[in-house]
Amino acid sequence: MTLTRRTILAGALAPLASRLAAQSAARHIERWDRFELSLAGPQEGNPFLDVRFSAEFRQQHRSVQVDGFYDGGGAYKVRFAPDAEGEWSYVTHSNRSELDGKMGTFLCVAPSARNHGPVTVRNTYDFGYADGAPYYQFGTTCYAWTHQPAALQQQTIETLRQAPFNKMRMCIFPKWYTYNQDEPPVYPFPRSAGQNDYTRFVPEFFHNLETRIAQLQALGIEADLILFHPYDHWGYALMPPEVDDRYLRYVVARLAAFRNVWWSVANEWDLVKGKKIADWDRYCRILQESDPYRRLLSIHHSGPMYDPTRPWLTHVSIQGDDFARIPEWRAAFRKPLIFDECKYEGNIPKRWGDISAREMTRRFWLGMANGAYMGHGETYLDAHDILWWSKGGVLHGESPRRIAFLRSIIEAGPAEGVAPVPGAYYPCIARAGVYYLYFLDFHQPALAEFDLPAGGPFTAEIIDPWAMTITKAEGTFSGKFQLKMPGKEMLALRFRKAGA
Amino acid sequence: MTLTRRTILAGALAPLASRLAAQSAARHIERWDRFELSLAGPQEGNPFLDVRFSAEFRQQHRSVQVDGFYDGGGAYKVRFAPDAEGEWSYVTHSNRSELDGKMGTFLCVAPSARNHGPVTVRNTYDFGYADGAPYYQFGTTCYAWTHQPAALQQQTIETLRQAPFNKMRMCIFPKWYTYNQDEPPVYPFPRSAGQNDYTRFVPEFFHNLETRIAQLQALGIEADLILFHPYDHWGYALMPPEVDDRYLRYVVARLAAFRNVWWSVANEWDLVKGKKIADWDRYCRILQESDPYRRLLSIHHSGPMYDPTRPWLTHVSIQGDDFARIPEWRAAFRKPLIFDECKYEGNIPKRWGDISAREMTRRFWLGMANGAYMGHGETYLDAHDILWWSKGGVLHGESPRRIAFLRSIIEAGPAEGVAPVPGAYYPCIARAGVYYLYFLDFHQPALAEFDLPAGGPFTAEIIDPWAMTITKAEGTFSGKFQLKMPGKEMLALRFRKAGA
Repeated sequence: MTLTRRTILAGALAPLASRLAAQSAARHIERWDRFELSLAGPQEGNPFLDVRFSAEFRQQHRSVQVDGFYDGGGAYKVRFAPDAEGEWSYVTHSNRSELDGKMGTFLCVAPSARNHGPVTVRNTYDFGYADGAPYYQFGTTCYAWTHQPAALQQQTIETLRQAPFNKMRMCIFPKWYTYNQDEPPVYPFPRSAGQNDYTRFVPEFFHNLETRIAQLQALGIEADLILFHPYDHWGYALMPPEVDDRYLRYVVARLAAFRNVWWSVANEWDLVKGKKIADWDRYCRILQESDPYRRLLSIHHSGPMYDPTRPWLTHVSIQGDDFARIPEWRAAFRKPLIFDECKYEGNIPKRWGDISAREMTRRFWLGMANGAYMGHGETYLDAHDILWWSKGGVLHGESPRRIAFLRSIIEAGPAEGVAPVPGAYYPCIARAGVYYLYFLDFHQPALAEFDLPAGGPFTAEIIDPWAMTITKAEGTFSGKFQLKMPGKEMLALRFRKAGA
Repeated sequence: MTLTRRTILAGALAPLASRLAAQSAARHIERWDRFELSLAGPQEGNPFLDVRFSAEFRQQHRSVQVDGFYDGGGAYKVRFAPDAEGEWSYVTHSNRSELDGKMGTFLCVAPSARNHGPVTVRNTYDFGYADGAPYYQFGTTCYAWTHQPAALQQQTIETLRQAPFNKMRMCIFPKWYTYNQDEPPVYPFPRSAGQNDYTRFVPEFFHNLETRIAQLQALGIEADLILFHPYDHWGYALMPPEVDDRYLRYVVARLAAFRNVWWSVANEWDLVKGKKIADWDRYCRILQESDPYRRLLSIHHSGPMYDPTRPWLTHVSIQGDDFARIPEWRAAFRKPLIFDECKYEGNIPKRWGDISAREMTRRFWLGMANGAYMGHGETYLDAHDILWWSKGGVLHGESPRRIAFLRSIIEAGPAEGVAPVPGAYYPCIARAGVYYLYFLDFHQPALAEFDLPAGGPFTAEIIDPWAMTITKAEGTFSGKFQLKMPGKEMLALRFRKAGA
């Protein structure tokens, strides 16, 4: 039957079929959005292993090879996110004739207002959307939110709708850890009697993940997908190398076309036992090879960093609060720095999960004023052990609205970007002559002295990051001057060119 | 005339003179207190350079050589602080016969209640008084307080009477620096037309200094005397080496017998231009040679430390707030660590002088909970530029009473001393099985988990370092347990063996 159909299509009717496919696919796809081709194919045997399926997407002289994937139920899919407007054509390739040589076109059209494209590195240390809009990373963390009951997942989305975060750190694999010792509703691999069948994937697992990634995308939230992590009791941290590799290629085939996907190769790579540096290198190489978009790529550490200068890493994912090293790290790594884990606001009996809202707020300001980006997480004790940092749900803390306040300030900054001022008297990010944002931390000068290098005159605003107030100082300022201050700690100062 | 008197004394009447001297000197001197012998001698020429004067103090088989000094007005003095009770005898030595061979005795008696003797290093990392009482260092800083008008000096003493400090960091030389650009009432060397006569000292300068050191002693405050510093406009930081050396010997001869004297060879040694490591080594050697008591000795730094392992340094005087390095420094230096300068509570437009009271309080707790000792200073703007850190006067800040509260807690700890617990979950000083004092800083667990290694059961008290409250928890605790906490940051916890 299959053979018969193939014969017909590949034979006399091939031009017609091609035209039909082209018509049916003559969809309008927004730039950076997802085109998906789904073809029916074999279900017998093990399609995950037996069938190779890919497509080549072409526009004028460009050709982009994209791996497809088996999505269960006889459906073979390939996804592609075009980065240029105009007509694209494709042709499929497969070792199974019914999936091979399928052709079609689609029209890539201008993005809609809320589609800014993927985030990439900009100006060495920062990020921006592909459409030119700046992206200031304000992350949060819900490691295992997609492994919770559907209602809880939906609640997380509702919470995020009101929250100030534009990046979510989340694990693809379920997580087994304190406050989080539950079986997920669905496993990534078929599982029975405690054994994983690593030769197959469970499409429903990925369908749910994709739904959640798409929901995040709709909210303007990047999905920083953690590919491996040590908090495991199912075996996912210890799979044979060929399974690791197949998993990575499958994930990339499914997810890379989501423009809000980032790859976090590991959470705490150095705590994953049994993997060597060469393994991590290989994972990165596979991601480089198979991801046509070269989505943002990092590896998060616990103790030692995986060498951040490795060329395939787009940015540095940092655990800790050693903000004093930001200048050194910027100089050494020449990449954006994200303190993805500066501990969590909460009250659990763990020193990584019991920092105050004040301290979390302080860390966001301190990290950003030194030229890095920050990530949030929350770990308040809960009667049902639903802690945001792992399961999502609702936020209880006092830092998110302060982070929202900070985000509003950062986003009101110069669109061309800011950079830390080396040797500034207090940590300061600036655009020379135009904009200076200082964070004074535990300093409480009653008179603060500044010597703004050029430009001006400047307006001065005293910002209270905790009270979330902005108070404009009388007059304007330039050059060397003293500014009367409330003599209170934990304040910030913003100078902007008057009239600019 | 002088010769005539000497001839008589040295001749037939010598035994009688000796007996008379013994009678007149048969004073009762408390152990560790100051015996002073004053003899009239030559005033002609330059007594500071021309006359050598010293004494040998003897008790049974012990002999202690002590340098004397010229105190002006023809008075030659030698001071001695006996460290053992019983009769001591002395005999003077001089290149001038009228000062040579004078003999006498005095009786060293038991110390009075408030005299605990000098402070020395105890148990490698701590301090104790010679009588066995513990000494927990709580320092403050008034660099130039003895160079202020007398009324202001007296006000400083009155302030200290109510303050929690038991060590004062203070410069011998006047200081020229921001908020402190005044000429002292008296100079250490005769000065005219902007020139110092380095061949002479000004005894009045030292009389005042001694009065202040004695006042500090009466208040139980150690005087950490800074011998050199860079903040100079008179030339004292740039004297010829032979003047440096003569100055050190003169200072030691005058001041070493004050049992509350410590030597701080420099403030910010590395900022004193023109002195080499060999110079600092030589200063230390001179102090070692000439100070019969080997008073506590340190060198304070700005950037690089003068090698703290140098054997003549009794402890490490630290600038900064790098409390995370305390374990490493304890292991490397094996000496007490004093963070003499962790910045100053205040509001001046200097980041070293504008930290909040909360931050100063936090630093005291954090430093001590990690196994170091702390020093305070205060720099609030003042209409008359009287800032405590330099000139003394009154305290305006909110940290001193919190430091008093901390001191009361530390002094209520085990008299045998405490030590930091390596790898403690939160910084903790303890006496195993008996006493644990944790500082939780920005951590706010609602439940805190502890696993006290041995002993118990323990009472638990939640300490609020800012509110200065101690709240006893219900029940007793031992081994591994969870303690309900207020879920609030900046708390400390004390566990004490119940009934102990």
